[in-house]
Amino acid sequence: MKFNLGCNLTYSLSAESTLIFNIALCNNRVQHILHEDLGIQGDATVDHYTSSMGNRYSRINAAAGSLTLSYEASVELNAIEKPPQSITEVPPAELPLEVLPYLYPSRYCESDRLLRFAQTEFGELVPDYSRVTAICNWIYENVTYLSGSTDTQTSAFGTATERVGVCRDFAHLGIAFCRALNIPARFVTGYAYGLQPPDFHAYFEAYLGHAWYLFDPTRLVPRTGLIRIGTGRDAADVSFATLFGPVMMEEMKLWVDCISPGEEPQATDEAIAFVELP
Amino acid sequence: MKFNLGCNLTYSLSAESTLIFNIALCNNRVQHILHEDLGIQGDATVDHYTSSMGNRYSRINAAAGSLTLSYEASVELNAIEKPPQSITEVPPAELPLEVLPYLYPSRYCESDRLLRFAQTEFGELVPDYSRVTAICNWIYENVTYLSGSTDTQTSAFGTATERVGVCRDFAHLGIAFCRALNIPARFVTGYAYGLQPPDFHAYFEAYLGHAWYLFDPTRLVPRTGLIRIGTGRDAADVSFATLFGPVMMEEMKLWVDCISPGEEPQATDEAIAFVELP
Amino acid sequence: MKFNLGCNLTYSLSAESTLIFNIALCNNRVQHILHEDLGIQGDATVDHYTSSMGNRYSRINAAAGSLTLSYEASVELNAIEKPPQSITEVPPAELPLEVLPYLYPSRYCESDRLLRFAQTEFGELVPDYSRVTAICNWIYENVTYLSGSTDTQTSAFGTATERVGVCRDFAHLGIAFCRALNIPARFVTGYAYGLQPPDFHAYFEAYLGHAWYLFDPTRLVPRTGLIRIGTGRDAADVSFATLFGPVMMEEMKLWVDCISPGEEPQATDEAIAFVELP
Amino acid sequence: MKFNLGCNLTYSLSAESTLIFNIALCNNRVQHILHEDLGIQGDATVDHYTSSMGNRYSRINAAAGSLTLSYEASVELNAIEKPPQSITEVPPAELPLEVLPYLYPSRYCESDRLLRFAQTEFGELVPDYSRVTAICNWIYENVTYLSGSTDTQTSAFGTATERVGVCRDFAHLGIAFCRALNIPARFVTGYAYGLQPPDFHAYFEAYLGHAWYLFDPTRLVPRTGLIRIGTGRDAADVSFATLFGPVMMEEMKLWVDCISPGEEPQATDEAIAFVELP
Repeated sequence: MKFNLGCNLTYSLSAESTLIFNIALCNNRVQHILHEDLGIQGDATVDHYTSSMGNRYSRINAAAGSLTLSYEASVELNAIEKPPQSITEVPPAELPLEVLPYLYPSRYCESDRLLRFAQTEFGELVPDYSRVTAICNWIYENVTYLSGSTDTQTSAFGTATERVGVCRDFAHLGIAFCRALNIPARFVTGYAYGLQPPDFHAYFEAYLGHAWYLFDPTRLVPRTGLIRIGTGRDAADVSFATLFGPVMMEEMKLWVDCISPGEEPQATDEAIAFVELP
Repeated sequence: MKFNLGCNLTYSLSAESTLIFNIALCNNRVQHILHEDLGIQGDATVDHYTSSMGNRYSRINAAAGSLTLSYEASVELNAIEKPPQSITEVPPAELPLEVLPYLYPSRYCESDRLLRFAQTEFGELVPDYSRVTAICNWIYENVTYLSGSTDTQTSAFGTATERVGVCRDFAHLGIAFCRALNIPARFVTGYAYGLQPPDFHAYFEAYLGHAWYLFDPTRLVPRTGLIRIGTGRDAADVSFATLFGPVMMEEMKLWVDCISPGEEPQATDEAIAFVELP
Repeated sequence: MKFNLGCNLTYSLSAESTLIFNIALCNNRVQHILHEDLGIQGDATVDHYTSSMGNRYSRINAAAGSLTLSYEASVELNAIEKPPQSITEVPPAELPLEVLPYLYPSRYCESDRLLRFAQTEFGELVPDYSRVTAICNWIYENVTYLSGSTDTQTSAFGTATERVGVCRDFAHLGIAFCRALNIPARFVTGYAYGLQPPDFHAYFEAYLGHAWYLFDPTRLVPRTGLIRIGTGRDAADVSFATLFGPVMMEEMKLWVDCISPGEEPQATDEAIAFVELP
Repeated sequence: MKFNLGCNLTYSLSAESTLIFNIALCNNRVQHILHEDLGIQGDATVDHYTSSMGNRYSRINAAAGSLTLSYEASVELNAIEKPPQSITEVPPAELPLEVLPYLYPSRYCESDRLLRFAQTEFGELVPDYSRVTAICNWIYENVTYLSGSTDTQTSAFGTATERVGVCRDFAHLGIAFCRALNIPARFVTGYAYGLQPPDFHAYFEAYLGHAWYLFDPTRLVPRTGLIRIGTGRDAADVSFATLFGPVMMEEMKLWVDCISPGEEPQATDEAIAFVELP
């Protein structure tokens, strides 16, 4: 399945500033970039960095004035689908040790404060893929999706009780519940085919059956149309834009088109994995 | 139904200190004090104050050394029992205005932060006595009673997610849920017949059908054996002992005996009210 | 000193709703209402209630549609000014027992969590009026006044660290620090002569020298031009408007005029008290 | 400077459990392990993992019963000392991009909620090594070191206001303040020469002048005697022991001896760096 996608982000800077972006696609065997272009309009210098997770950061040091960042890419996506019935949790005794950091609490996923909550709600469930599905169902049914209801300080402990949020809050809560049950989980950002209005999206992955499976408790779009940007412990790791200086966003445009006619992403109950990822 | 009850509290003071107690029984028509005695051993002066709620406070200004407070009382309790089926919620349009403060959030009952939680869990239920029962059942089933698990800073917002606590936390959460649903609710402290180990107890009242009905989500003792000390918005109002100075508790003894043979308090599904209270 | 003041509040109700207002002036010997008028435009019934604190609440049960509340009053203010040097703190051993509730933590003033903070910053200061002045100075210097920076869930514990807020946050923090130092303190709302843009205001009172003295850490207006509406433990007690139902504010207008020519309120370093209050 | 050090940790397991330890020394050019030995007594299997940060984890899958972990090592430490005057902050425009994660908020270091606090207290200071020293001095002067006062859920936002804690809380607060000022900072655990009673220690590093400099706001021991175990964003990354299962600690013994006579670590005002670290 192939997509064309991209974004235009325009900022006004009232003084020299530094902006760090994580908006370029992750590139790997299951998500192969066919073509991409990153353009900058404004008086600026750029340098790039790819983390060990495959996250691609661009730092722009820009003079006062207007700055526009334009990214476009063509990408081929080969999500692996598996029947969920066969996928079981991996006990701590058998987890790869490099996966352990995704068991620990993080800024927006205070799993250490949700142990009893998770145990009460999900502790009796069968320890396999269906338990993470139950977590996502619980979030979908108990948390109201409401634009503008939360901010960058909102975290899973609050959302568990406040019961309102946006995609990043849904993902944080899913991650926190998983970790509280000793299921490694991590935060993923991406472009999402079919999202209305178009925007960056956030969802999560849980480590089950020795692979990372993708979950999206918002149910806003088919998981097979999620195209990865960044992977991290939570939103602190993979912010789309980190701004140092007096910077104001002026305009944001974003698009995702499927260019595989007749193959558009569809909702599915299969488990979706991107197993080639670290 | 008649009870003998009391407590002995011993403190050591390493300097002159002030101690304010709220351990004497509330006295009214449904809870009639037959006899009582408050004794103090130690170098101290006392003054007393009864609030508009009927809470009785004693302030002791004591010199360094040992201080023992001894309270004993005989009391006759005439709880009013009603079939719960007939008791409905009172909408804000009809609430007595002096009841309104019990709708507002307080230190340990942040109902304003639990609106969606309460709405999600209890919003669809029939707006009558059975809804408050459902709240108590939810607390009983989802919160673990564990001595020493919480402290004087623990509040309902935390308990809703942490899911562990003692009687005061159970009461605070019940109150917060009620207020979040526009049901006035207040905190009650008391002596509790049958409580093991003997200790002061905390529970709550909800304003339904134009009376204050008693609820105890801990299910530790029959509600008909609850003998009121203080009534307030939450534990901040009716602390058993408020200490100013270097004071250490050395020993505490507490007892409640039923002296109406054959009439000992029993568990009941009836609604229990003390309607004569303000 | 005499003032004309008032407000017009317009709401749109998409269904039958209940609104409770606390916008009428408190009436007592030091703040004497010469004339007042409360008008309601819309399909509504009203009832009134004056609390033991002298707060005056009006409940409006209104049909769907537009609702306008108009309040105007003439008031004579006789603030008592005293030289601050003579005013000392009252130790817990000597506090009137009915003042004690203002020592306890409340929803927005978690003094119990600020004990060490208050002790570190203000513990060594002379225990008199100047210590509360020091608290106000600290708030003025360390907390940024920024409209829209906080919401109705913001409380003193957060403000102590977040360091931003509006008048109610400034007052809550002042109250919390006072209580943490065993100085009774309470929340006051009012009309404020000279406030730009005109709006309801919030400040606080501390119990010193056996009277309630007025403090305003915002320094926005002279304290002698503060005209009391409500008095409570914190904003939970004296919300200007408590809304039950689908109610939207459409417009708000508010004014305060001094009608004692040549006597307009001026900034002063004197202690300002309204000693006749309960 | 050479040290012999080690620990014996004894646990009782009431069922099969998994324990993950991070107690072995980090090994690199400035901290060179001369000899080490890790022994396990009990019915258990072990596997080891070294992270990209150089943290060494050991996972023990153990049967019910008693388990003792014994670690001992000899190590040579070559801390680099520099005059602090020459060390300046590195602006975001020039930070190595791989250092950026240490600017982001983490579970126990909510720097995003301390921006104004940090700005108010430290914003005007010279942006160099002395500013981080000022942060450490502030913590030392305003936060009380008190064993048992906090727990594993305590984080910098709380400590900033509660003003009490232990070494990990001091480090978390230092890190949070640094990050709030755009100074990358990270958490370090270690053995500490001279610590009484002997225990694992926690401190932090700030990225200044393109190196990681070591800071310890507790002032409990000389920094030159700090021997590194783990490095991470905060305590979530480098817990000494992470326990899965019904595990109770029975005994813990820990020692650090300097075996370079006459060269024992001394307090110093020099900046201490371990520049060879990643």
